[in-house]
Amino acid sequence: MVRHGESTANALNQYTGWNNVGLTQEGVVQAHVAAKKLQGFEFEHVHTSVLKRAILTAYIIQDDLNLNYVPITKSWRLNERHYGALRGQNKDATRREFGVEQVHLWRRSFYAVPPKLEHADPNVGPYKYYDARIMPLAESLYDAYQRIVPYYVDQVAPRLLDGKDQLIVAHGSTIRALIKYIEGISDQDIDGVEVANGTPLIYEFDKKLNILSSNRQGK
Amino acid sequence: MVRHGESTANALNQYTGWNNVGLTQEGVVQAHVAAKKLQGFEFEHVHTSVLKRAILTAYIIQDDLNLNYVPITKSWRLNERHYGALRGQNKDATRREFGVEQVHLWRRSFYAVPPKLEHADPNVGPYKYYDARIMPLAESLYDAYQRIVPYYVDQVAPRLLDGKDQLIVAHGSTIRALIKYIEGISDQDIDGVEVANGTPLIYEFDKKLNILSSNRQGK
Repeated sequence: MVRHGESTANALNQYTGWNNVGLTQEGVVQAHVAAKKLQGFEFEHVHTSVLKRAILTAYIIQDDLNLNYVPITKSWRLNERHYGALRGQNKDATRREFGVEQVHLWRRSFYAVPPKLEHADPNVGPYKYYDARIMPLAESLYDAYQRIVPYYVDQVAPRLLDGKDQLIVAHGSTIRALIKYIEGISDQDIDGVEVANGTPLIYEFDKKLNILSSNRQGK
Repeated sequence: MVRHGESTANALNQYTGWNNVGLTQEGVVQAHVAAKKLQGFEFEHVHTSVLKRAILTAYIIQDDLNLNYVPITKSWRLNERHYGALRGQNKDATRREFGVEQVHLWRRSFYAVPPKLEHADPNVGPYKYYDARIMPLAESLYDAYQRIVPYYVDQVAPRLLDGKDQLIVAHGSTIRALIKYIEGISDQDIDGVEVANGTPLIYEFDKKLNILSSNRQGK
């Protein structure tokens, strides 16, 4: 699992969520660095969100590994958590407005929901094939987890059981949700799990999807 | 339909076929030019071969049109014609070796098969999921047509009937084969059909897939 390289919104220290921003030059470099750390893997499927910062990171990794041909699935279920009305706002500005504790809660607590949008965004672009009810007003990590895990269960795990190495290129909260599911981490302890841009997190499973090894720090 | 941008082998005037070469800088520019000519289209599916020169061209076009999220299918069936033992050889050198007429026949006649490989390539990489019998020793345009058309029939046409705009990024011979099928061109007349790098060929169909309009020159 790889978190996308630095985005233009990361660089501005903004909440991004479902905003569709591109990579910075540093983000492109991070994608190449991630690819270098993944040399030797021959993925049989790539999974990303429908957000371009993840898709472009996946493309760079596939190109560097000469695995352009590998099928890629892009799903809204792997999107970053939806930050509601915080979207596009500067993180320090929200700390000044709402207080450090409240912002920490929104960012790290499993159930805290950020301030909601008044109206959901229209379900256009990648979302046009879906019922408008998939468009969030805001998501807690729990809300995001609830929509992310079905993707893992249906699209990733069956291929793992079939012996296929896979690459997931997604987002900070998406990957935290997947770590929670894969490692069975409690609602409390997920608070302390951090995911850096462009640093591959590698899990090896046995035939029953028990974890055999992982390079995750701070377990 | 877009033919990939200039490849490193195009630049060396070599037969390429299933060789997996990248784009030149000029090829990248051609992809951007193609994207510019496709402004306003909102494809609902992208189709490419498993060869990186087509895949990278598709990615550039998708990125320029802000359509990164659109699903992409990469199929060996859309690969360039397999040039057999001519692969990697300079086109002028083969003219000197085999004569201008013979080379013209191999390049443009519908049924002429280039000199065959002694042994087919191993079915590894993108081909590993398939029976080794898909790996050609060499292909005439007819042979390529026979494997390309099933993809169009099964994957492209049903989506057209469903009203979906689509983008196919492929290769000179692949696109010639598709033009032959779509326009019902005779075995003889396909000889005169040329496809330039990075110049979109746009067809509009009615509900029964009769051609309503097309920008193809020289019809």
